[in-house]
Amino acid sequence: MTDTVAVFGTNPRTGAKLPPVAVETTGAEVAALVTAAAASAPGLAGLDRAARAHVLDAVADGIEDHRDELIEIASAETGFTTAKLAGELTRAAFQFRFFGDVVREGSYLEAAIDPAAETPMGPRPDLRRILTAIGPVAVFGSSNFPFAFSVLGGDTASALAAGCPVVLKAHPSHPATSQRSFEVLATAVPDGAVAIVHGTQAGIALVAQPAIKAVGFTGSLRGGRALLDVVNARDEPIPFYGELSSLNPVVVTPAAAAERAEDIGAGLVGSFTLGSGQLCTKPGFVLVPDSAEGDRLVAAVRAGVVQSSDHVLLNEGIHAAYAAETAALRGRADVRTTTGPGGDGAGFAVAPMVVETALAELDPHLVHEVFGPVTVIVRYPAGAVIDSATTALESLPPSLTATVHHSESDDALTALTALASARAGRVVFNAFPTGVAVSWAQHHGGPWPSTNALHTSVGATAIRRFLRPVTYQNAPAHVLPAELRDGYDRIPRRIDGVLHPAG
Amino acid sequence: MTDTVAVFGTNPRTGAKLPPVAVETTGAEVAALVTAAAASAPGLAGLDRAARAHVLDAVADGIEDHRDELIEIASAETGFTTAKLAGELTRAAFQFRFFGDVVREGSYLEAAIDPAAETPMGPRPDLRRILTAIGPVAVFGSSNFPFAFSVLGGDTASALAAGCPVVLKAHPSHPATSQRSFEVLATAVPDGAVAIVHGTQAGIALVAQPAIKAVGFTGSLRGGRALLDVVNARDEPIPFYGELSSLNPVVVTPAAAAERAEDIGAGLVGSFTLGSGQLCTKPGFVLVPDSAEGDRLVAAVRAGVVQSSDHVLLNEGIHAAYAAETAALRGRADVRTTTGPGGDGAGFAVAPMVVETALAELDPHLVHEVFGPVTVIVRYPAGAVIDSATTALESLPPSLTATVHHSESDDALTALTALASARAGRVVFNAFPTGVAVSWAQHHGGPWPSTNALHTSVGATAIRRFLRPVTYQNAPAHVLPAELRDGYDRIPRRIDGVLHPAG
Repeated sequence: MTDTVAVFGTNPRTGAKLPPVAVETTGAEVAALVTAAAASAPGLAGLDRAARAHVLDAVADGIEDHRDELIEIASAETGFTTAKLAGELTRAAFQFRFFGDVVREGSYLEAAIDPAAETPMGPRPDLRRILTAIGPVAVFGSSNFPFAFSVLGGDTASALAAGCPVVLKAHPSHPATSQRSFEVLATAVPDGAVAIVHGTQAGIALVAQPAIKAVGFTGSLRGGRALLDVVNARDEPIPFYGELSSLNPVVVTPAAAAERAEDIGAGLVGSFTLGSGQLCTKPGFVLVPDSAEGDRLVAAVRAGVVQSSDHVLLNEGIHAAYAAETAALRGRADVRTTTGPGGDGAGFAVAPMVVETALAELDPHLVHEVFGPVTVIVRYPAGAVIDSATTALESLPPSLTATVHHSESDDALTALTALASARAGRVVFNAFPTGVAVSWAQHHGGPWPSTNALHTSVGATAIRRFLRPVTYQNAPAHVLPAELRDGYDRIPRRIDGVLHPAG
Repeated sequence: MTDTVAVFGTNPRTGAKLPPVAVETTGAEVAALVTAAAASAPGLAGLDRAARAHVLDAVADGIEDHRDELIEIASAETGFTTAKLAGELTRAAFQFRFFGDVVREGSYLEAAIDPAAETPMGPRPDLRRILTAIGPVAVFGSSNFPFAFSVLGGDTASALAAGCPVVLKAHPSHPATSQRSFEVLATAVPDGAVAIVHGTQAGIALVAQPAIKAVGFTGSLRGGRALLDVVNARDEPIPFYGELSSLNPVVVTPAAAAERAEDIGAGLVGSFTLGSGQLCTKPGFVLVPDSAEGDRLVAAVRAGVVQSSDHVLLNEGIHAAYAAETAALRGRADVRTTTGPGGDGAGFAVAPMVVETALAELDPHLVHEVFGPVTVIVRYPAGAVIDSATTALESLPPSLTATVHHSESDDALTALTALASARAGRVVFNAFPTGVAVSWAQHHGGPWPSTNALHTSVGATAIRRFLRPVTYQNAPAHVLPAELRDGYDRIPRRIDGVLHPAG
């Protein structure tokens, strides 16, 4: 008999252990769960679009029905405010309904029909292409979004929307939230379509299972890279969709600073301390002109930091890393730090911090993602915004986002936009990168190490990650998916190269 | 001073070496070429769609202008017939023009606009999403398609269409063809947009270059896996689009055999000997009922093999592998082989072969891709087509294609279609898998080891491999790509979730 390993959360406000939730899933249990998921795959993929959308709506209803209970459990495990958790649940329910809309609308199938024809290459047969579910997907919940990027998050919603069973890996920062979320999810979906595992080894075993056909992961670069190595060691490589690391640079032009120094400074503090600075879109690197206007902006940031409080981090690991990083920063002669209140009580509470340095003296080791309410302000020569932004952004790894604060008639804007779009997946103008709307045109991705560059984990097109194309050549109508038959007009289709909207 | 290594082809009809074409590219040269390609990337990506399409048309014109010369060079290096090579050039030119059409049509940009709005998640900013070039691409030419899947092939055409510079790795089976093709290509595209390297080590160095952002490869599973290992060892992983290996199973139902035994048998010989059996879509595994009708079909195949001739393989390696495989098969007691004429002369000429075995006795080691004019016929109990096909297909790796020969009212067809579409990227009905039309609805891909499952190397959507999304949030109109500005109506766009065709 194998010893079981208990799984339990910790109250970040006190550091106290919470009651055990589950035991770590064994390798044999992981294999059995994946086998069951694979067995459920054809049934799930075979549901018509209306039925699949109905399942997604039912999950959204379930989330709302269990709203108070879920928030209470998550609050105890994560230290997040009720407002943040309520917003996440609203987002999670919205996201399931949104993917229901995506499935009903049907463009995601990319249905295309090329009728038989003569071409310069010779006769062409009748070809009909559609996207189909890739198979069982492993989804790793994040630490920092116990609802919106975890069991009830966008990876789960988009994979189920695609028709793929989902085997979830619970995040150790919120196992009870994950387990209860899973139960809410499981009651709304067909039998076998979802499963959950607990424990690091279970996660590794999950990714190694041959029946798993894609992985969705939101977490650290180190954790993601370790899982990617497991993927790469498989006989059959599979897509790994990791959202891994992002510094989210911000460039403030001299004209923007002249116009809105105080507003930008205050907005920046709100953004980098949101969620206790544990957001993947936290602005972690801010270029500010070395000028009187820039000084005003920095003064506003310092003032905001000194007034900011109540920043509880998620877990012991994040807390220890933040404490070590900020202590080292305070000890450096080449940077100036301003620390806010807090961080000396029980649990994982910390003080916010702003770090200031000059571009000419920028230490590359200073610039890496740190979870927690800290950002780095880098002053640049006010007469050289394009050159400075180029030097700075090319020295950073690519990010999920890049932000430009500009004035209405800023000469530098075209060049800064080109620079930003080359190094990030979302370019934000006169706003802050935190806050990622779920919508058709959203992109939450970017060149490595943000993600794998080609795909998003938020927004309608996230579903594309879990679909593969199939083309039918000269198929009798009765064996085709309904959406590929002649005369079907309820979704947009491309016929002989011409896009036809739904009828 | 480093010694140079000469690169030369071999005449497969005689085995004689051809004159040297180039020298192997050194690591330093590879790095310099990639740096130049990266420098050309913004200019190429910045061309408007009309200008990009014009470049693709110019390549097509160049191909046709050099048609006779290119065919002559390739014939000497590959042993392929003039008819095959002429068909390939027609295909290559058609493909560049086709991607010009894809660029002009503009759907590939996936342009989407979500205007600012109130949502259940709160206020949504203005979001505008488009796809943009991923950056320099490495393209590895194939052995078996010196034009259509090499320097002038679909990977090059789709990458340039996406706006990506291309650094080509010439295939050692046809270095002169590759070099001359490159010269034709280079005169039609902007300076620096294409480059070529020769030599295995140069190919490895190419994939390891940090500025390379994606790899297109058509070749063997072993070669592809080795390159994938180089990709996986990079600091920044990049997409690897390998078209690697495919058995292309064919299922003949009892009713189909009863209707068309001789036609299917003759068609099969034509298909598995096409291009001397060196096509990635060669039918290499054929399920035939164990019945009198099945016997007639097999007799037709044997007769076709005995009448087939003139099969020259591409190079010494393919020739040696084929000779070893077929010799081993002839020596086995558990299979029956029928060998056609040829294979005892000079060069790399071989005799075609059909191998017969029974499903109940199928040796899994018998079933793997062998380049050359050989296929394996597997007899199954005529009363158990669905069970037999399930057993057989689930024992094979997935393929690019799966084919069903059926009668009009075949009860088994729905089940066989589901089985085939789960294990292949293209399902062919009452035809043969060789011949891959370039069109909007084509898919040339499939679950590993066919490809990486999600993407195609043939057809309009091949362009998606070389594009990444960018979303602009609250951007001033003048910094947006033209296709994302209000009022632009020359391409289909999704606005607030609704797809609008071009105006």
